[in-house]
Amino acid sequence: MTEIRVRFAETDQMGIAHHGAYVDWLEVGRVEWLRQHGYVYTELEAQGVSLAVAALELSYRQALRFDDVVRIEARVTAAASRGCSFAYRLIRSHDGVLAASGSTRHIAVDAAGAVQRLPATWLSFLRQHAQQERSQARC
Amino acid sequence: MTEIRVRFAETDQMGIAHHGAYVDWLEVGRVEWLRQHGYVYTELEAQGVSLAVAALELSYRQALRFDDVVRIEARVTAAASRGCSFAYRLIRSHDGVLAASGSTRHIAVDAAGAVQRLPATWLSFLRQHAQQERSQARC
Amino acid sequence: MTEIRVRFAETDQMGIAHHGAYVDWLEVGRVEWLRQHGYVYTELEAQGVSLAVAALELSYRQALRFDDVVRIEARVTAAASRGCSFAYRLIRSHDGVLAASGSTRHIAVDAAGAVQRLPATWLSFLRQHAQQERSQARC
Amino acid sequence: MTEIRVRFAETDQMGIAHHGAYVDWLEVGRVEWLRQHGYVYTELEAQGVSLAVAALELSYRQALRFDDVVRIEARVTAAASRGCSFAYRLIRSHDGVLAASGSTRHIAVDAAGAVQRLPATWLSFLRQHAQQERSQARC
Repeated sequence: MTEIRVRFAETDQMGIAHHGAYVDWLEVGRVEWLRQHGYVYTELEAQGVSLAVAALELSYRQALRFDDVVRIEARVTAAASRGCSFAYRLIRSHDGVLAASGSTRHIAVDAAGAVQRLPATWLSFLRQHAQQERSQARC
Repeated sequence: MTEIRVRFAETDQMGIAHHGAYVDWLEVGRVEWLRQHGYVYTELEAQGVSLAVAALELSYRQALRFDDVVRIEARVTAAASRGCSFAYRLIRSHDGVLAASGSTRHIAVDAAGAVQRLPATWLSFLRQHAQQERSQARC
Repeated sequence: MTEIRVRFAETDQMGIAHHGAYVDWLEVGRVEWLRQHGYVYTELEAQGVSLAVAALELSYRQALRFDDVVRIEARVTAAASRGCSFAYRLIRSHDGVLAASGSTRHIAVDAAGAVQRLPATWLSFLRQHAQQERSQARC
Repeated sequence: MTEIRVRFAETDQMGIAHHGAYVDWLEVGRVEWLRQHGYVYTELEAQGVSLAVAALELSYRQALRFDDVVRIEARVTAAASRGCSFAYRLIRSHDGVLAASGSTRHIAVDAAGAVQRLPATWLSFLRQHAQQERSQARC
């Protein structure tokens, strides 16, 4: 879990956070979720592997406004040797309202964009969490 | 149809256009498609109606790079009294490669965010194009 | 003082934070400095006054990278009935290096963009801090 | 000379183009000015040289709004073996109003950020234009 505060630059002339800003927030949430579990994204990149975004989906439920604090809940939902998927919930912190939910699908690539295998430790870690997710979803 | 050129500011450290930039391009494509059909978005807003984004979906197929020219094909796929949906294809102009595809779903709202009816002329226009789309899809 | 962490979306293909991202960070630093002194920018806007940016200046000294934590030091350097100025220093947190410095000049405007007087409490507060700044600069 | 159209994503809740967006427009103007003179920025980068931004200055005179077409006039004002400077004017196309002016200073660097010499053809080209600028300024 991490929190961001909506920046003035992220608003648009409707007086709300622009829908494009949420994409950057998902990314922040993903990076911080990894860090909180001991996996630092820059270390993955130092091993020559990046998680390119292959697909993105967002549902906007409640407008967010300048200065709102937003809790980003990220979780791994699937992991395979060459990629993984995340799901997200964006919660407005002051009242707990679900503002948006979304998902991203990622492919492991090298600096030239060629598909790679995830390092074994990363794959094992992601798989374990994806399985926990599925187990919890069943309950 | 409209074209954008990938800005340097839109690249990220993977050396490609950041996946978040595509969201702004869909928006540009949508606004220009409307204009090319005689419907100027600022005139809709002048009538007190905005098309808030309720959902967004993007599939990334081929990386785009700084200075690439990208053709944005937008089309209405559904229209109702209180909203509409668009679909998009992003084509890399120099070789015609499909770089990404996506869709957005919109709700007509007023300045306070309350759901509104689309002005009759806009609804009629959007419905007509959505029907054409469906007819063509059937062929 | 506030801290931001460089987002992946804020990098460019040079592998560093894009120079445009700094503008948003100055804004974050300004808003947080005000909040830390008991002045919430949304409350100024609720009184019908915004601080439009009239001028901006940035000097980039040391590149910032993805995941760097950056300390933003903001301070008021001048205040008058219809505007104010801020100066900023961006410090890379892990080693204390001065990464960038800058300034912004602001004009108080209403929602239509017409020049306004700052509310008396805001003006008094900003003036007091601007004077402290000048006193300290003399020592 | 090049033109951009203010994107909806570039507006903020003041109902105008956010001041940060102008930074990206200067960049677009610089790249297009180079291209119009036969110098393609990607070709400079292919030679291992980038023009890192060392300083930036912007004066905002007239607010720009969503859908405004803006003419970006860029010109080289100085060139040396290891860097150059540009100046810019942003003109609102529909009425010719000067909306903003600015400048950027650049240092030639390699991919690791180390200072480089500009390729001889680029330096010669930039110097010639900077001299023309100065001659015209004297008249």
